Amino acid sequence: MISRWVWRAGWLLLPVAWLLHRFVHDDAIVFFVACASLIPLAKAMGDATEGLAERMGPAVGSLLNATFGNAAELILGVAALRHGHLDLVKGSITGSILANLLLVGGGSIVTGGVRFSQLRFNRLAASSSIATLFLAVVAMVVPTLLSLGRNPRYDPALLSEEISAVLIAMYALSLWFGLRTHREHMAALDDGPPAPAKRARTAHHRPIWYDLGGLLVAAAATAVASELLVDALNGAVTTLQLPETFVGVVIVAIVGNAAEHSTALLFAQRGDMDVALGIAWESSKQIALLVAPVLVFVGILLGVPMDLAFTRFEVVALGISVIALALIALDGETNWLEGAFLLAVYAVLGLGFFFGG
Amino acid sequence: MISRWVWRAGWLLLPVAWLLHRFVHDDAIVFFVACASLIPLAKAMGDATEGLAERMGPAVGSLLNATFGNAAELILGVAALRHGHLDLVKGSITGSILANLLLVGGGSIVTGGVRFSQLRFNRLAASSSIATLFLAVVAMVVPTLLSLGRNPRYDPALLSEEISAVLIAMYALSLWFGLRTHREHMAALDDGPPAPAKRARTAHHRPIWYDLGGLLVAAAATAVASELLVDALNGAVTTLQLPETFVGVVIVAIVGNAAEHSTALLFAQRGDMDVALGIAWESSKQIALLVAPVLVFVGILLGVPMDLAFTRFEVVALGISVIALALIALDGETNWLEGAFLLAVYAVLGLGFFFGG
Amino acid sequence: MISRWVWRAGWLLLPVAWLLHRFVHDDAIVFFVACASLIPLAKAMGDATEGLAERMGPAVGSLLNATFGNAAELILGVAALRHGHLDLVKGSITGSILANLLLVGGGSIVTGGVRFSQLRFNRLAASSSIATLFLAVVAMVVPTLLSLGRNPRYDPALLSEEISAVLIAMYALSLWFGLRTHREHMAALDDGPPAPAKRARTAHHRPIWYDLGGLLVAAAATAVASELLVDALNGAVTTLQLPETFVGVVIVAIVGNAAEHSTALLFAQRGDMDVALGIAWESSKQIALLVAPVLVFVGILLGVPMDLAFTRFEVVALGISVIALALIALDGETNWLEGAFLLAVYAVLGLGFFFGG
Repeated sequence: MISRWVWRAGWLLLPVAWLLHRFVHDDAIVFFVACASLIPLAKAMGDATEGLAERMGPAVGSLLNATFGNAAELILGVAALRHGHLDLVKGSITGSILANLLLVGGGSIVTGGVRFSQLRFNRLAASSSIATLFLAVVAMVVPTLLSLGRNPRYDPALLSEEISAVLIAMYALSLWFGLRTHREHMAALDDGPPAPAKRARTAHHRPIWYDLGGLLVAAAATAVASELLVDALNGAVTTLQLPETFVGVVIVAIVGNAAEHSTALLFAQRGDMDVALGIAWESSKQIALLVAPVLVFVGILLGVPMDLAFTRFEVVALGISVIALALIALDGETNWLEGAFLLAVYAVLGLGFFFGG
Repeated sequence: MISRWVWRAGWLLLPVAWLLHRFVHDDAIVFFVACASLIPLAKAMGDATEGLAERMGPAVGSLLNATFGNAAELILGVAALRHGHLDLVKGSITGSILANLLLVGGGSIVTGGVRFSQLRFNRLAASSSIATLFLAVVAMVVPTLLSLGRNPRYDPALLSEEISAVLIAMYALSLWFGLRTHREHMAALDDGPPAPAKRARTAHHRPIWYDLGGLLVAAAATAVASELLVDALNGAVTTLQLPETFVGVVIVAIVGNAAEHSTALLFAQRGDMDVALGIAWESSKQIALLVAPVLVFVGILLGVPMDLAFTRFEVVALGISVIALALIALDGETNWLEGAFLLAVYAVLGLGFFFGG
Repeated sequence: MISRWVWRAGWLLLPVAWLLHRFVHDDAIVFFVACASLIPLAKAMGDATEGLAERMGPAVGSLLNATFGNAAELILGVAALRHGHLDLVKGSITGSILANLLLVGGGSIVTGGVRFSQLRFNRLAASSSIATLFLAVVAMVVPTLLSLGRNPRYDPALLSEEISAVLIAMYALSLWFGLRTHREHMAALDDGPPAPAKRARTAHHRPIWYDLGGLLVAAAATAVASELLVDALNGAVTTLQLPETFVGVVIVAIVGNAAEHSTALLFAQRGDMDVALGIAWESSKQIALLVAPVLVFVGILLGVPMDLAFTRFEVVALGISVIALALIALDGETNWLEGAFLLAVYAVLGLGFFFGG
């Protein structure tokens, strides 16, 4: 009960951010308060989506979760695109994937692993997540490599659009796989209720307009917070002397995925690794195969040259994180040392981004 | 029966290509007809090799298959080398491996996977194929990396010759492994007859001179078609405004492996994944560990500076495809989503080559 | 018995090296004799450490082994650092890891594999070794990538120190894992005595001062041999026309790990792959996660700019070797072809270093 009130009190951060923006004019402070205000808003959107999802039946519900689960990242991405902050957009995509795979995933494994000496989870879910994430890495390697060379034929916008179409198609296929053809194979090892139902257990006494209204209000508030954040970005980056990519990769990404993090740790503590890791992996897949390509198409509409060419260090970091995940997860079992390994990889990559990766 | 006559009618493409070359002088058309004429010729050489192989008993037979199975690629490669088209030669090596691993492999898995929810295959065959293919990637990474730097000690020809010797030795060892020391472990999961015997079931009423003659005639015809193709290459590349590497990687490679593709899909449809994937993997191994190093040595004889330094994008694409294969195949089971994943990786890499990778 | 006297006779190489240094002044000869003299000294230190370890009980004993097992590499590294031979230090770190994983590991698998058609080993030990080694690769990729760019924020010394702290912490955690929380899971498959005890069976009749004194004397002798070697390095490199990195990666690394190599092969011959591969993997982990970061901190004390930025080729070679190991070892079984594969990868990488990688 207490934690619920803390989350609700978090909504107050948004008006605070706005007041600071209006009257104090210190960009660094506005930036951090706007960042912090995104945490409860992202959680509110996630909760409302799950409340709706539960009411719609499993198929439509999972689709809802799969489409709106990372709505906060999308709204923030659109705001940053509108102001031309491409490095922030790309950085927050990279960072969200890294944070989910290494920080949320590693933290969950350590949390579960200190209580249980061996943790098991569904191998099929692991291997299909890893394969789709590896495709996302390939989709970023190709334009990044081509952008390093000097080839007259290379048209970054066109290539990224075509690759984005492949990614979205693959995301649709992976939903079809999980919800239709291999639904029963992807279920958790114990025959408990599937993950989304478990997570939303508290929601089903609320009327439907409550969730629908909550979703709309939270989305609108997120849009406002995103505007404040992006508006303060230039000033904050100058004051803090941090590269924009680092801000996107580490700060924004951790903030945007804080809600996922706390939920995943909760399930990991009970030893329910299928749900804990499922949250981390589904969120990464959604960012990589849905949010990133949608932002490419939004870029066309806004006339901003958004493509899938990242910095060399971002692509290497993504490749490293997917291979690190494959090394520990493909066998369907893990332990605390492997969780610590993921956290250590995150720490080393984070240091690299700090020093200007 | 009908399909057999279609294949035989395909032989007519060669005289058509020659007539076009002689009287029409449109390089792009000659190029495409010569390409198409290679499809039935490659299949005829493969069939004749298998017919002979079956008659020679399993050991010599498998050796024949393993040596002449990609004779068409070798003949085409020699023709391209003689005209100094190094980019085409290297591109068609890269492309053959990519096409076999991702296109034939992925297509087979999707074909089998839409009928059976889980596909199983021999894990030992998978892991030994993946290891040998990874060695081939290493063999291309090393000269490519060195050729990017400026080192006075670096002698590209000598390095590539020594690496080629290692590759051929490893290919011989992998044959020894499959045919001698671990023959029974490599057999298909069900106790059916081994793969080559299955594929050649229709052949054993023909007299031996039929296959021997067929092999020689098809090889000679392939040499003629290769000459026509290579001769028309410069003109075709200019007309179509395509980079030579793309022509090698995508067009020539798909044409040269069309026969393997159709056979593999046939077996995949029956759920016989050991044969279907075996065709794709054996063909890749043969190109990487036999055809490529033999072409290096042929280059010495012809005085052409053929080495194993590829473009950066080619090497990255090969590395990606072997890791993608490892992610899905090391556990000995797969499903349609993993096949779709391989096809999506092929699509993204193909787009990259199109835009000048 | 004979082999023991050969090892002891090897101690004579050190005075020979000193005499050559004093009276002959041929740096190449001094270099090679000093190199050779390191082989028995490294073995003597390893034997003494194990003798002590056995007497201290399993926990302290394993800690001793884990800390002093690669004392020879550390002593040589400090000597090379003092003379500013950074390329040699980094090369010998790279080379020790490569030699252990590919040469010792591959040689052990081939040795065991020619007698037993399938070799099994503890999967948990394999996967935790691979994960920690992959972290070491990441720890070298990050500074190497950053050092290739031109970023004003990049501070190589500070980044390498912070990464070194992460590595040492991870090494401590992996010891805690192996010695405490997952001790019984890491035991060999058969219920024989644990590895260190097996290796030191001959030691337990000797008095404790014998081992303690032996350790000190051997360490002092190693320091002298290292001085001679490093002192002769410049001359030897000029005479032999070999790059310093190659000398470190291949010559020094093979010499420094010769003792591990002979012990591992002995156990592999008996089919005891858990001990054979354990020696190779533990030694690699120790070099990567303890010796390398300790040398970074020693560099600070000596005022030498030692960091973790390696050459591009070294980092690629390390990444390749860890992935090669993962491809064959994650499933907990192997065979001679996979051992030959590791040796072939070593040969190709070695050729690359020879030609100036």
